[in-house]
Amino acid sequence: MTFNETIVAPATAASVSALAIIRVSGKEALKITSSVFKGKNLEEAVSHTVHYGFIVNKTTHETIDEVMISVFKAPKSFTTEDTAEISCHGSPFIVNKIIEALIVAGARLAKPGEFSLRAFMNGRINLAQAEAVADVIASENEMQHKVAIQQMRGGYATELQQLRQELIDYLALIELELDFGEEDVEFAKREQLISFLVKLAKHIAYLTDSFKVGNVIKQGIPVAIIGKPNAGKSTLLNVLLNEERAIVSDIAGTTRDTIEDVMHYKGFSFRFIDTAGIRHTDDSIESIGVEKALQKARNASLVIYLFDIGSSQAQNILDEIKALQIAEAIVVPVANKIDKVNWKVTAPFSQIPNVQFISATTKFNVERLKEFLYQLATQNTQAVTANSIVTNIRHYEALQKTSEYLTRAKLGLENKLSGELVASDLRETLNYLGDITGQVDNEEVLASIFSRFCIGK
Amino acid sequence: MTFNETIVAPATAASVSALAIIRVSGKEALKITSSVFKGKNLEEAVSHTVHYGFIVNKTTHETIDEVMISVFKAPKSFTTEDTAEISCHGSPFIVNKIIEALIVAGARLAKPGEFSLRAFMNGRINLAQAEAVADVIASENEMQHKVAIQQMRGGYATELQQLRQELIDYLALIELELDFGEEDVEFAKREQLISFLVKLAKHIAYLTDSFKVGNVIKQGIPVAIIGKPNAGKSTLLNVLLNEERAIVSDIAGTTRDTIEDVMHYKGFSFRFIDTAGIRHTDDSIESIGVEKALQKARNASLVIYLFDIGSSQAQNILDEIKALQIAEAIVVPVANKIDKVNWKVTAPFSQIPNVQFISATTKFNVERLKEFLYQLATQNTQAVTANSIVTNIRHYEALQKTSEYLTRAKLGLENKLSGELVASDLRETLNYLGDITGQVDNEEVLASIFSRFCIGK
Repeated sequence: MTFNETIVAPATAASVSALAIIRVSGKEALKITSSVFKGKNLEEAVSHTVHYGFIVNKTTHETIDEVMISVFKAPKSFTTEDTAEISCHGSPFIVNKIIEALIVAGARLAKPGEFSLRAFMNGRINLAQAEAVADVIASENEMQHKVAIQQMRGGYATELQQLRQELIDYLALIELELDFGEEDVEFAKREQLISFLVKLAKHIAYLTDSFKVGNVIKQGIPVAIIGKPNAGKSTLLNVLLNEERAIVSDIAGTTRDTIEDVMHYKGFSFRFIDTAGIRHTDDSIESIGVEKALQKARNASLVIYLFDIGSSQAQNILDEIKALQIAEAIVVPVANKIDKVNWKVTAPFSQIPNVQFISATTKFNVERLKEFLYQLATQNTQAVTANSIVTNIRHYEALQKTSEYLTRAKLGLENKLSGELVASDLRETLNYLGDITGQVDNEEVLASIFSRFCIGK
Repeated sequence: MTFNETIVAPATAASVSALAIIRVSGKEALKITSSVFKGKNLEEAVSHTVHYGFIVNKTTHETIDEVMISVFKAPKSFTTEDTAEISCHGSPFIVNKIIEALIVAGARLAKPGEFSLRAFMNGRINLAQAEAVADVIASENEMQHKVAIQQMRGGYATELQQLRQELIDYLALIELELDFGEEDVEFAKREQLISFLVKLAKHIAYLTDSFKVGNVIKQGIPVAIIGKPNAGKSTLLNVLLNEERAIVSDIAGTTRDTIEDVMHYKGFSFRFIDTAGIRHTDDSIESIGVEKALQKARNASLVIYLFDIGSSQAQNILDEIKALQIAEAIVVPVANKIDKVNWKVTAPFSQIPNVQFISATTKFNVERLKEFLYQLATQNTQAVTANSIVTNIRHYEALQKTSEYLTRAKLGLENKLSGELVASDLRETLNYLGDITGQVDNEEVLASIFSRFCIGK
């Protein structure tokens, strides 16, 4: 597949900074860029070289900016097309002016993800890798980053691609048998095929299971804080989130967008649910029986049940938690305001399973609470390696479908069903496997996948 | 001057985007970058080439990102030092990780403007050019951009540098005369020197005058909107500003920071004063006599005196404006709500000098009002060429000082004062001229100039 149009887009964030990059890709990328460039003729430049000069307005001959242009010649570029990367001064005004000049010279503004779409369509990367690039860019913590980088470099898609190829070979043999019609030939050794399907099913099941971890890594671990009014919910929330903010803005000069209600800890994200409610009115949850608060807690993986140790009875806490009827999440009882009571008061409370003692106001034991939440959230994730974690819900759904048809094919073989039925199930298996590695020929699906990317990517 | 430390900083804006650039500069830039780079040994790379590979954590051996690194070898780089520019995925998390890895490998986080400081100290650009780079980045409209680009390419500083050199030669001759002590020699022809000083003074005066225009270009033209309650001040302000917003965010994908209360029109910025007051309560200015509102109007260059044509008397408007006692600004009487009255009503108002008829609600004639404001604001700026506009207040002050000592030196020569006195005045003249072109040896002054730059610049 070749693309006729040359596309252009800013590749860096649009705000005042030292530098900005504009990407131009397509058959005429070097010709178009050269036409607004006072400097070397880029069509004659060697690939992977950088050239100094000025971008000029072709009509007014005014200088727009002093730039450096990197030249990448097909097929040795991200898109596999001729590509120019213009490094200009980091002024959104100038970036817009240069892009305008390139559009006047014949380029078209790229759609979000269009560079990656070309890289994929031109066979430079598979679909899972393209999607991983978007995840790499969006990664905000250690684990998200690790998993995304692995996927970008191939990850499980490469392995699935190999297994899929093996399956294609088996299918070809079965289809060959069908060509022989009435004759009773058997090119594909049934036992061998079954044991291959078992192996494949095991691998798929492993990946499907990993989605639970993957989803936690990508979306964060949903945590709800509930408790009676004045238990200190908003104070605890602020302490958990504000400390995080201080850490994140650690490296000078790199300010970050506000991380609304996410706490990053040891590479995992903890996403606090309904923080607005907690923040604005600590008393919005009138009593712990209120259904709305409970509903939210049930959508969480972890629920902090916060209580004021000074005004609670140890024997009541377990009953209160039981009354919540939250079976879906792990409930962590947290005794707050420990700084306000005599240490003897804590004794009966220490009988409560998993109980944590903190003082949100003085931050006492808050770090320990974080560590405890982390241990709970990750207790099932240690065995999984970053290389085989599925974080993409599209992949997860395709794996489930793969598994379904795989099972059918295997049952068919075991029950000696006709080759035609088995072949049909194997074809479906191949289709769904292909959804992951990128044997997708539906343009709408592709457009939808790539439209979620950044501009310039 | 050489710098021993190798510095590193992000050069692009810190938010999620397709790409980000990290700059490394200094004696060990290529060695340090190579030490975290799985790819070509950059120390052996040819200047102006780009290399593909991976940034790895030296300790854990984990891959941080897939990158392209551009290599610039001394002296052919912005700083004139060995420089590596790392193009990585546009994730602030990854940018921070790569910078951390480089710091662990021996680089130091750069201070704001430190790359430009090195470029200046190493003689790559003069001080006025370095300052122009910061202006180029900050430019938000056509005129700001044009003037900044001219300065970056040399602008008036180059010419001043030549004139300064000529003056140095004259001074050398006069100092030679002083060496001869009692003998009555005259190496520097007095007439020639005086006519040179006249020429120089004329040039300086021209530049000093241009600052009035330059300041308007750089800071924008301050405009105040005043008028009685319900004249429609907030509606007019929103119409003037919102239309602008739509234009600015024209190019898809490049969202910009909110431009609070600036209207860009034909390359000029109009900065509205006290917009918060106008926006939040139209009635905050209880009567037009309120001193606070007037104070603001007096700080403006242009004052829009807005009135509701339906509830005003033409003969009163001029008196009302006179009562404002604003001598410092140009007052433009603007009759609003023209859509609500019969056209005959407008007749007596059209006698008011400079009056404009608009309807802020229907946007009728709002474009014409903008054009009128533009004409008023720029009526004195047409003669000045972008090449010789001083926008920098530091330069303006230095030019004033230059002019002062120049006049003294000229008077001294005309009154045949001793060579020593003339030489002293000429030396001061040279000093102040040097402030612009960069013969600045005060480290604190330099630090203060460059600290206003972006990080990574």
